[in-house]
Amino acid sequence: MKKVLFATSALVMSAGFASAEVAVSGDGRMGVIYDGNDAQFSSRARVKFTLTGESDAGLSFGGAFRVDQEDYNSDYRSAAKGTRGVVWISGTYGKLSMGDPVGAAEAAIGDLYEVGYTEGEFGGDIEEIGFLVGDGNNRDQGPTALYEYTINNISLYASMTDGVNTFGNAIFGSGTTVIDPETGLEVVTNTDSADLAYSVAAKYEGSNFWASLSYSKNGDAKEIGLGAEATFNNFAFKGVYMDYEDIALQYTAGLAASYQMDAILVKGFWRQDKWEEVTGDEKYDSFGIGADYDLGGGAVLAGGIIDTDYLDDTVVDFGVKFSF
Amino acid sequence: MKKVLFATSALVMSAGFASAEVAVSGDGRMGVIYDGNDAQFSSRARVKFTLTGESDAGLSFGGAFRVDQEDYNSDYRSAAKGTRGVVWISGTYGKLSMGDPVGAAEAAIGDLYEVGYTEGEFGGDIEEIGFLVGDGNNRDQGPTALYEYTINNISLYASMTDGVNTFGNAIFGSGTTVIDPETGLEVVTNTDSADLAYSVAAKYEGSNFWASLSYSKNGDAKEIGLGAEATFNNFAFKGVYMDYEDIALQYTAGLAASYQMDAILVKGFWRQDKWEEVTGDEKYDSFGIGADYDLGGGAVLAGGIIDTDYLDDTVVDFGVKFSF
Amino acid sequence: MKKVLFATSALVMSAGFASAEVAVSGDGRMGVIYDGNDAQFSSRARVKFTLTGESDAGLSFGGAFRVDQEDYNSDYRSAAKGTRGVVWISGTYGKLSMGDPVGAAEAAIGDLYEVGYTEGEFGGDIEEIGFLVGDGNNRDQGPTALYEYTINNISLYASMTDGVNTFGNAIFGSGTTVIDPETGLEVVTNTDSADLAYSVAAKYEGSNFWASLSYSKNGDAKEIGLGAEATFNNFAFKGVYMDYEDIALQYTAGLAASYQMDAILVKGFWRQDKWEEVTGDEKYDSFGIGADYDLGGGAVLAGGIIDTDYLDDTVVDFGVKFSF
Repeated sequence: MKKVLFATSALVMSAGFASAEVAVSGDGRMGVIYDGNDAQFSSRARVKFTLTGESDAGLSFGGAFRVDQEDYNSDYRSAAKGTRGVVWISGTYGKLSMGDPVGAAEAAIGDLYEVGYTEGEFGGDIEEIGFLVGDGNNRDQGPTALYEYTINNISLYASMTDGVNTFGNAIFGSGTTVIDPETGLEVVTNTDSADLAYSVAAKYEGSNFWASLSYSKNGDAKEIGLGAEATFNNFAFKGVYMDYEDIALQYTAGLAASYQMDAILVKGFWRQDKWEEVTGDEKYDSFGIGADYDLGGGAVLAGGIIDTDYLDDTVVDFGVKFSF
Repeated sequence: MKKVLFATSALVMSAGFASAEVAVSGDGRMGVIYDGNDAQFSSRARVKFTLTGESDAGLSFGGAFRVDQEDYNSDYRSAAKGTRGVVWISGTYGKLSMGDPVGAAEAAIGDLYEVGYTEGEFGGDIEEIGFLVGDGNNRDQGPTALYEYTINNISLYASMTDGVNTFGNAIFGSGTTVIDPETGLEVVTNTDSADLAYSVAAKYEGSNFWASLSYSKNGDAKEIGLGAEATFNNFAFKGVYMDYEDIALQYTAGLAASYQMDAILVKGFWRQDKWEEVTGDEKYDSFGIGADYDLGGGAVLAGGIIDTDYLDDTVVDFGVKFSF
Repeated sequence: MKKVLFATSALVMSAGFASAEVAVSGDGRMGVIYDGNDAQFSSRARVKFTLTGESDAGLSFGGAFRVDQEDYNSDYRSAAKGTRGVVWISGTYGKLSMGDPVGAAEAAIGDLYEVGYTEGEFGGDIEEIGFLVGDGNNRDQGPTALYEYTINNISLYASMTDGVNTFGNAIFGSGTTVIDPETGLEVVTNTDSADLAYSVAAKYEGSNFWASLSYSKNGDAKEIGLGAEATFNNFAFKGVYMDYEDIALQYTAGLAASYQMDAILVKGFWRQDKWEEVTGDEKYDSFGIGADYDLGGGAVLAGGIIDTDYLDDTVVDFGVKFSF
């Protein structure tokens, strides 16, 4: 649940004033994971900031990041350095985001259904599709940009990196020798050319279904994605097919289904990955099933089971997750 | 002082709705520490998040951590990884906490009185009793669990770790070979059996006193604890005795007293530790005395003196501490 | 824009109660930097906490730090350890700050005008004057103290470090052997004498101008600073001259000017540094020019160009910056 802070400024009290705001929300979870050998406690608490504002001309802008996404000392994982969280601007022309947004393919297609109170983490997040652009890739290039535009039933997505690796704080040209104005010492600047990574996608939304198509390229590697989801009464079904070129992973095929019954939501997925390995091609199958029970007020009791060829053992989680 | 954020959602405005909230509070301090050789500036500012919610059936839940307790890159010290801060759920059956709570013994007995504006830190926190479970131990096992239950005048406490060291993010079984679904590379999972650490304690609370008993075990090491505190008029007295087995520390005995006079609070403690050393047994005595002067509005002027055999010099602090 | 959280406590509702508060504000930016070779995306999002309170006797106190200024694991860059952010107390006798405040010279003189949406960062913050005390120096000495006092048109500033390097958490005397009360192991304490760094400055403020003079010393290095700023109609001009002794940098001379025209603010600066190098003395010139366009509601469109002898290439930035 999102909380918006009241502002004491008199200006804010006047009607119609476009006020900039910082909202503070949070989440938490606690429970037990059985990893096939041991039962382990697993818990967490997180807080998220959502920044929103509006210009005089009605342009919306904002940003969002979690406390745990801020670690200034770690050069590439910091909202204050543009490699975590997101900043955006939005108007009639569409929405432009920068920072660590999802790539175009992921924005249009997304992942399979998460099971368990750790939302798939107990099984290595095997319900997550491996997108080539965004999705944790290319953070060494600094911020990624994502553009979204919706016209009637069609949404268009485009995302890209800037093709320049940025080591540390440096924002100067590659190979430039710089003298630090405070110490007088020569410093060789530390940026470097990288492969441009980009992704484009389109999504069609009907009344009770959507279908998406994506194309992504990251260096030599290519990815073509297809996704669709439909809802009938209390059922939802989703299918994803990703075809990869010039990486070891050949394809990923995935299906997911869910059934809502009052406060109970039952979810499951199947996924197959084909890998090109030295010893020949190999297929890996993964299955997951879980149930959520909504306790109200932001609390959900949840459990899941994941059986995947990537793990020797079947893994299980059971616990409660909260949103604040 | 704790601040609770207002929520703008219409739902929240409706009476009786159990709303989830994020409260933001803070503390600070500034002053000078004399370490026996030099006077040193010492200051800090911190912010704490307190998350609270209630399910439809009246179950309370929440979490709490400070900004400086979140450092995702450091594998074992992060509220987002369950090794800092705490998440809890509470109802008629008691309260269950997970994360980095105090152990059962510490919950029932606690430490001696803190002196000085740095609350004992200038003297190495020598007023803190060394509990075997929780209290900074066993964080490599991931979250610790603490259960508390109060019936009439008696409170029962039980805490335990899960007996599994968790390196980094891995939550899979020990020794399992995993293939990373995004890279296709084999990764040997990195969890490991550890000694289960647990602690149980009971506390009896009378009208102006309490007494507690605890038993803790961490690997081979054992700890039996006794604690009691009484208040008479403006005086408070506390005594703690901890008996250890199978570690170098043989016992810790401690006494503390305080006297409140209007805005002034005078506090002091004595502590003796007996160590088994190569050269024979050795006793270490520590003394501390200090005074707080409440300036109102969350500001307290405070100073303290600590003289301990653990330090060559008598150390002194003097400054002001704030709560927001 | 600063937001102050409402407090739910009934006490706070009562008139005249001096309440302690935590305000949450934020900023963000997104755009493109041309570093002379490549165009690069650059964005960020940040959140700041401002803590304020007042004692019963009317003494103000507070603190401030950003989320990205908190990194407890990094020993010397943490608001919770006093080496980032600031804590202060203020009354009729003046204002005393501790933590990581600017030094006296920087408080009185300041930097040249920032250009671009990254506020000079795209050109290595070359508009920033290199002050010897504060300004990122001496953080290994723990908190720095800054005292400010204003009487009529004259403001006086004094800042200093404590002359003691503090490694990690230790606050004991140098060379002391300590026994860790929890492990029983001997630990040699880790503090060390350092050069005291201090700075004093005075500022005279007239109706449309100010002039400042400063003297700073950090070990052998000395710095004498002169600064002045004047505003005429929509124009502002600033000049800074810093004379250094016993460091490689001989002097820094800087001029800055700005012109405000409705929502548009045009800014520029020139700066010359003279360095003593092995191959003889060398002068480095730097120029910057930029324009801000205020979109209202906390959004500003901005761009800048910096040409400096410290960089092989002319660098450019263009983007939008937000305050929340």
